[in-house]
Amino acid sequence: MDEKIGKYEFVAEPFHVDFRGRLSLGILGNHLLNCASFHAKDRGFGIATLNEQHYTWVLSRLVIEMDSYPMDYKKFSIETWVENVYSLFTDRNYRIAGENGETMGYARSIWAMISMEDRKPINLLKINDGKIMDYISDYPCPIEKPSRIKVMETAPAMTHRVIYSDLDINGHMNSIRYIEHVLDLFDIEYYRKYNIRRFEIAYVAESYFGDTLEFFTEETGDNSFNVEIRKNGNEVVCRCLVRFG
Amino acid sequence: MDEKIGKYEFVAEPFHVDFRGRLSLGILGNHLLNCASFHAKDRGFGIATLNEQHYTWVLSRLVIEMDSYPMDYKKFSIETWVENVYSLFTDRNYRIAGENGETMGYARSIWAMISMEDRKPINLLKINDGKIMDYISDYPCPIEKPSRIKVMETAPAMTHRVIYSDLDINGHMNSIRYIEHVLDLFDIEYYRKYNIRRFEIAYVAESYFGDTLEFFTEETGDNSFNVEIRKNGNEVVCRCLVRFG
Repeated sequence: MDEKIGKYEFVAEPFHVDFRGRLSLGILGNHLLNCASFHAKDRGFGIATLNEQHYTWVLSRLVIEMDSYPMDYKKFSIETWVENVYSLFTDRNYRIAGENGETMGYARSIWAMISMEDRKPINLLKINDGKIMDYISDYPCPIEKPSRIKVMETAPAMTHRVIYSDLDINGHMNSIRYIEHVLDLFDIEYYRKYNIRRFEIAYVAESYFGDTLEFFTEETGDNSFNVEIRKNGNEVVCRCLVRFG
Repeated sequence: MDEKIGKYEFVAEPFHVDFRGRLSLGILGNHLLNCASFHAKDRGFGIATLNEQHYTWVLSRLVIEMDSYPMDYKKFSIETWVENVYSLFTDRNYRIAGENGETMGYARSIWAMISMEDRKPINLLKINDGKIMDYISDYPCPIEKPSRIKVMETAPAMTHRVIYSDLDINGHMNSIRYIEHVLDLFDIEYYRKYNIRRFEIAYVAESYFGDTLEFFTEETGDNSFNVEIRKNGNEVVCRCLVRFG
């Protein structure tokens, strides 16, 4: 085992699967973010350590592409590693595997580090003497990088006011809740017939308690959809791509 | 350690806490139900074993009473044990403790076993030769039993259509989602000023994709509220009590 790669074991809990018994994508997203935390922490780049320096990690993009999903009560594992480090961003990848080690899917994420005081980006190459570079791995991640998502639609498909259960400890809408709300845009027939093959989310701005979010969707063919979430008029909060298949 | 008691360790994950950093009540509820599964499984009464006999457990009531909550990144533990077994119900209790073993709260739950074929109740004393009786423990659970909740209100405080992310593997609204939706009824100020001291839920009927749920609330004084969820007109789905303090 490459020591640059972290590997973590999970079980698909009964309340973590959808009506087809598949691990919910929001729950999978949560596990991916936790794996990022564990992996970073064990290598000196954890949130607690960074917070002492008044820095924190911010998730910019997440892409998940699955051939199949862990089913209820099944064991699965997530591997994670750092693919690239630039001055302002780092690419962290993931491989999701079933209980016999078979690949179920891959994920990509892009993170920035910011100052907790002025929310300005921090040069990653200057943190801990650039030690993050030591963890770069060329373990393969054979899925496409995040795409550019554009939505021209002007009539919202759904409106949602940010409520208590949406909030994270920073008082923002929790990153995972966006995924859940976006999945609720689609007719139940899609979930009966298909799996979600690819899901992308680009986090653009935070939303807060009481904000009114509007969800704009555009079908792009081939059971693929672009979704843009805007708040309080026209400010973009995030952009998503959902491909069923 | 009393071998009748199961003890399970957890950490309050970053996406599992609310905007005050407290473990979300829905997440705590999920952990309690998982602990019930683990404990029952290790003693021959797990879902997988029961399903072979075409039986399953059904949660009838859940009461959680907390003096304090696990905060973000903190370790905590849950103990669970069987308090009573009757022919049609069993009482399962819980103690939630902080990382130094200090009591944070207790919970009570009531379960029935039903046939998966006709949904009729099964006599618990006849399953596995009444072996469930061997696990009864008198470990103390110093919180009140579930109360009788009545709501006379006729104007709904909230309406919610059951959506994809609400569903469990049986195609019902997930037991935990009811808790989250009920908590979203209350003004954010309650969560700023108070903790949830006591939460009760009595599950009366299932709801399904597309059902329209109406939430009726009644303040009963002392920052306590009764909530009734009805579907498609007047059929009661569940009743809750929420006490802030």
